[in-house]
Amino acid sequence: MARKVVVIGGGAAGMTAASTARGHGAGEITLITEDEHVAYSPCAIPFVVEGRIKDFQDIVMHTPEFYRRERGIDVLVKTSVDKVDEEARKVMTKDGRSFEYDALVIATGGTVFIPPVEGRELKGVFPVRGISDGQAIMERLPMVHQAVVAGAGVIGLEMAVALRARGKEVTVVEMFDQVVPRILDRDMAQLVQAHCEALGIRFILGAPLSCIEGEGSVTGVTAGRHQVPCQMVIMATGVRANLRIPEQMGLEIGPLGGVRVSPSLQPYRKGRLVPDVYLAGDVVMCQSAVLAGPTMSQLGSTAVRQGRVAGIRAAGGSATFPGTASPWISVIGDMHVGGTGMSRSLAEYYGVKVAEATGVGSSRARYYPGGKDITVKLLADAGSGRLIGGQIVGGEDVAGRVNWITAAILEGVTAGAFVERFEGSYCPPTSMVVDTVCAAAERLEKVLRAQGKSV
Amino acid sequence: MARKVVVIGGGAAGMTAASTARGHGAGEITLITEDEHVAYSPCAIPFVVEGRIKDFQDIVMHTPEFYRRERGIDVLVKTSVDKVDEEARKVMTKDGRSFEYDALVIATGGTVFIPPVEGRELKGVFPVRGISDGQAIMERLPMVHQAVVAGAGVIGLEMAVALRARGKEVTVVEMFDQVVPRILDRDMAQLVQAHCEALGIRFILGAPLSCIEGEGSVTGVTAGRHQVPCQMVIMATGVRANLRIPEQMGLEIGPLGGVRVSPSLQPYRKGRLVPDVYLAGDVVMCQSAVLAGPTMSQLGSTAVRQGRVAGIRAAGGSATFPGTASPWISVIGDMHVGGTGMSRSLAEYYGVKVAEATGVGSSRARYYPGGKDITVKLLADAGSGRLIGGQIVGGEDVAGRVNWITAAILEGVTAGAFVERFEGSYCPPTSMVVDTVCAAAERLEKVLRAQGKSV
Repeated sequence: MARKVVVIGGGAAGMTAASTARGHGAGEITLITEDEHVAYSPCAIPFVVEGRIKDFQDIVMHTPEFYRRERGIDVLVKTSVDKVDEEARKVMTKDGRSFEYDALVIATGGTVFIPPVEGRELKGVFPVRGISDGQAIMERLPMVHQAVVAGAGVIGLEMAVALRARGKEVTVVEMFDQVVPRILDRDMAQLVQAHCEALGIRFILGAPLSCIEGEGSVTGVTAGRHQVPCQMVIMATGVRANLRIPEQMGLEIGPLGGVRVSPSLQPYRKGRLVPDVYLAGDVVMCQSAVLAGPTMSQLGSTAVRQGRVAGIRAAGGSATFPGTASPWISVIGDMHVGGTGMSRSLAEYYGVKVAEATGVGSSRARYYPGGKDITVKLLADAGSGRLIGGQIVGGEDVAGRVNWITAAILEGVTAGAFVERFEGSYCPPTSMVVDTVCAAAERLEKVLRAQGKSV
Repeated sequence: MARKVVVIGGGAAGMTAASTARGHGAGEITLITEDEHVAYSPCAIPFVVEGRIKDFQDIVMHTPEFYRRERGIDVLVKTSVDKVDEEARKVMTKDGRSFEYDALVIATGGTVFIPPVEGRELKGVFPVRGISDGQAIMERLPMVHQAVVAGAGVIGLEMAVALRARGKEVTVVEMFDQVVPRILDRDMAQLVQAHCEALGIRFILGAPLSCIEGEGSVTGVTAGRHQVPCQMVIMATGVRANLRIPEQMGLEIGPLGGVRVSPSLQPYRKGRLVPDVYLAGDVVMCQSAVLAGPTMSQLGSTAVRQGRVAGIRAAGGSATFPGTASPWISVIGDMHVGGTGMSRSLAEYYGVKVAEATGVGSSRARYYPGGKDITVKLLADAGSGRLIGGQIVGGEDVAGRVNWITAAILEGVTAGAFVERFEGSYCPPTSMVVDTVCAAAERLEKVLRAQGKSV
């Protein structure tokens, strides 16, 4: 019998799970989402605000009608789930409907964490998560001369660049003392910060947002000892998993704040695997594919990979999610910034001693016009010599290199083996004869050798 | 005692061997080359002819003086080796000098194979190999209205585009019935041919060049039943290893026409490893890293990788060359074309049954302005499901994807494992949320599954 599938959540994880279940022989599929829109990429919102993409409608790939008509998936928008009755195998919505399931996919995603500071409810304070957030930001823009972005992660910096491109005075405030903390090392972060500063963006680092001032509307913020006047505050302060439903169901929450899952993406309750329930996306705490330990990936690409596995499983098929190295990329002004695996600080969180090296080169042969500088940092476990991380800042062609390094990390390749065996394609308009990734690996091999470690 | 090293050949392999030997503690290093220039990339020549790079001087990275002064390498240009006296461990030059060695690196490269057709010695007939060839072509250009390129490999097509950009009527004649034979499959080759035709380049396929006409200077060619008037013929008819020295020394030549080498890049004589002699670059027949069997890589990037190993060995160190998947890339007009591992025809030469699938996508999110079409073809060994090849045609960001696929091939990853484990970074300006490489892998997994094969 084809299985009835209910999916809670209409982001990348939920939509992928539903579409995949359809492709793997599921029966009735119902997808329930609180959002008005489905099938769009939150990652695109800063680029709409910046004006690189014309309209929010452009980033919506498909309508709910499309899914109904083309894929036989019943998509309920603006609909909240009240609770899940596992005994009866039913999902109840707040508007009083109920939907039976044979398999349930929970892809409730995450919500921007707004720190509990005074003034957070003032007009002009926005998270960046859904299209409606983006639309509200655009509507307010004409009233804004100065903007503050709270949080110097990639979304924060992309929004800072977008608002700067709209002619605003932009200040980024960040609790940590560097931009893109946790996933970029300080040396690489400094390149990114300098690029943003050259665009006229101001930074206040090591200073948590402590107060938002204003009456009705925001007029300024306090961060550390700094006061910054502003008419808009963008909250890019990180994403927390939406745990209401999982907690109601008594599912185990992991130490990093997501639902702990098996390789089949099933949750646990009181130490036992829960049957016929699968999780995917930002709500999940899964395995790192780099080192033995948990991770919160919270990337659209990971949501899709997990949605695929959850969808196959929900339909009764077989697939496993083997963990993630969480390769990421961001475009900040003209700069492409990406990384994969562990940064130094993350590795140290895992208790791992790191060896590192950096290569500097060009995206093309040195003499070929239009080449852009590229800086590649590689990190290895100092004990085994295995590659565990990479970070790249450059003007073009960063994404492919991030994926390339990710492949090496996933395969457990050492710096020495990378030098010996990994090959790069070469043509003057696309690469140097020794790619900067390979140059960084050669340096890293020397560092490891100098330390007398295996390479 | 630091070892005296003599390197024969000043291309990518020879120069890398010499520089690497210097970095690994070699003593005196002498490099002997017939060329006037060293340290330039022959791959750049079409782009100088096209005008993308201003001058041939731009592509010369370093002078012989640089190597003498900065690296303590004695570079003798315009110097021919007469013979190697292995007993006395001496290299004798035709101008009567001799150079002692403890280790000898042979990196004599290759020469364009000019088919033995009538008229090959006429004025206006050029190979494309060294800077002097490029300069001679440029000098003749003002006299040329129509040009014929013999050979539709990547160098031939790059030259055809270059001559077209200079306003010439260009006809490409090719013995095989497709462009980029052997390394591109027919379906992918057709995309490349169509792109060239849109630029106004004419093709005569399945028609070997049989005669070059003219008195003194070329006035036309015959290819198959076609006669094409022209004032210039570019010979892009493949490269043959320069075997004079290896043959004099009695080294074993492999079935593909290069010197057979061990993983240490040493040659064999009468079945025995020859001590203290190392080979690198286009003269070498080495192992394929994809399938058990020999290959002629003849890529600048492979020359550098082999030069590194030969240099370390020559200096007395330890390194091995583990084979090559020969990832390559070419820029033909606005099209980036690349590949890695086996094409279908090469795999069939190895006796391997192939499963294949193709994905079509964009270099950016569909809605993000400026995205370019990208087509990715993946090939697997139909028996094991292992990836053995990839081919990509696109408008940008092809090189990184070629390297990414190469990593999977080198690691012996199956299509199924690629889908399960390999991850791509995502950001709307740089990628689709499911990269086209991953989409192709998913299709390939389905093809294999439908055939009831392991995936």
